[in-house]
Amino acid sequence: MIADLIKANRSCRRFDQGHRIKSERLLELVDLARLSASAANLQPLKYILSNGPQTNARIFDCLKWAGYLKSWNGPVEGERPTAYIVVLNDTRICAKVDCDHGIAGQSILLGAREKGLAGCMIAAVNRPKLSNVLHIDACYQILLVLAIGKPKEKAVIGTVDADGNIQYWRDENHIHHVPKRSLEEIVIRCYDG
Amino acid sequence: MIADLIKANRSCRRFDQGHRIKSERLLELVDLARLSASAANLQPLKYILSNGPQTNARIFDCLKWAGYLKSWNGPVEGERPTAYIVVLNDTRICAKVDCDHGIAGQSILLGAREKGLAGCMIAAVNRPKLSNVLHIDACYQILLVLAIGKPKEKAVIGTVDADGNIQYWRDENHIHHVPKRSLEEIVIRCYDG
Repeated sequence: MIADLIKANRSCRRFDQGHRIKSERLLELVDLARLSASAANLQPLKYILSNGPQTNARIFDCLKWAGYLKSWNGPVEGERPTAYIVVLNDTRICAKVDCDHGIAGQSILLGAREKGLAGCMIAAVNRPKLSNVLHIDACYQILLVLAIGKPKEKAVIGTVDADGNIQYWRDENHIHHVPKRSLEEIVIRCYDG
Repeated sequence: MIADLIKANRSCRRFDQGHRIKSERLLELVDLARLSASAANLQPLKYILSNGPQTNARIFDCLKWAGYLKSWNGPVEGERPTAYIVVLNDTRICAKVDCDHGIAGQSILLGAREKGLAGCMIAAVNRPKLSNVLHIDACYQILLVLAIGKPKEKAVIGTVDADGNIQYWRDENHIHHVPKRSLEEIVIRCYDG
């Protein structure tokens, strides 16, 4: 059931850094994005993959983690992602993407979750620094970095309280709580006539 | 397997218009989007649903179909979608969304496909007209219209030839062909060190 997979597919920010991910696995995940929808079928997205410890460390230094957890600077050594998929827009094909990277990111992370992995779509990226680290040509625009690894944290879905606060938070057992708006709040109306 | 579902989930533009879709089914699909990732967990997306013939007809008049099929003006009466999910950005929550609507759209259409339905994410929308038809408040930005129904066309994935042409096309048996770029073309490199 896709519903079970979507519910299980929580953004994850702490990983078992001892768990290496093979290049073949990353290619399988990108293949899911390749076969997903693309506006006007232009398929402008390109990908740079990393599963090597040295490059991973350099990519990690370009990312900002979990803006709402003010006292947390991101995963410590030992709990960092063991792979990254950098999602680029090839501006020679499309000047500006609309939401292709969301479609692709969702396909990739659902595929990762099915294989016992987990990840996080990160848009808070130091783009000039990452371009330099990965020698990214100027024709490519960095859209997202997908951080992937074997999950080492538990996340649970909660509800947004009357105060409307949507900030995720961690409890004393390091469980990550994600408040979601109710269906009633997000569906404005349904026309059945 | 999510890979099978993603492969089966081709954009669909011709439907069995005799097949009605219940409001409960549409709400189930929106629930999949609700439980999917959202940037900074802001959840700015709101939804207007339609499964009524009269409103569907008015929404249909606001959409442009399949830009590459120049001799086709969209599905004829009898082959039109029987439901729509209009994806809005609540600008009071987020001034501009990045790719939340792609994430949501993919979750919804994967869910639809699992239930034997199919759909198409349409961004070529006459937004002022649709705002008027659906009485959409100015605080909402129309991002996408998801057209949904019971599929009445077959689509197959092909490969992009050496000429680089990515335009989908229909053969004499009305089978819809979608050329996809190869994995080799879209993966720039993999760092394993």
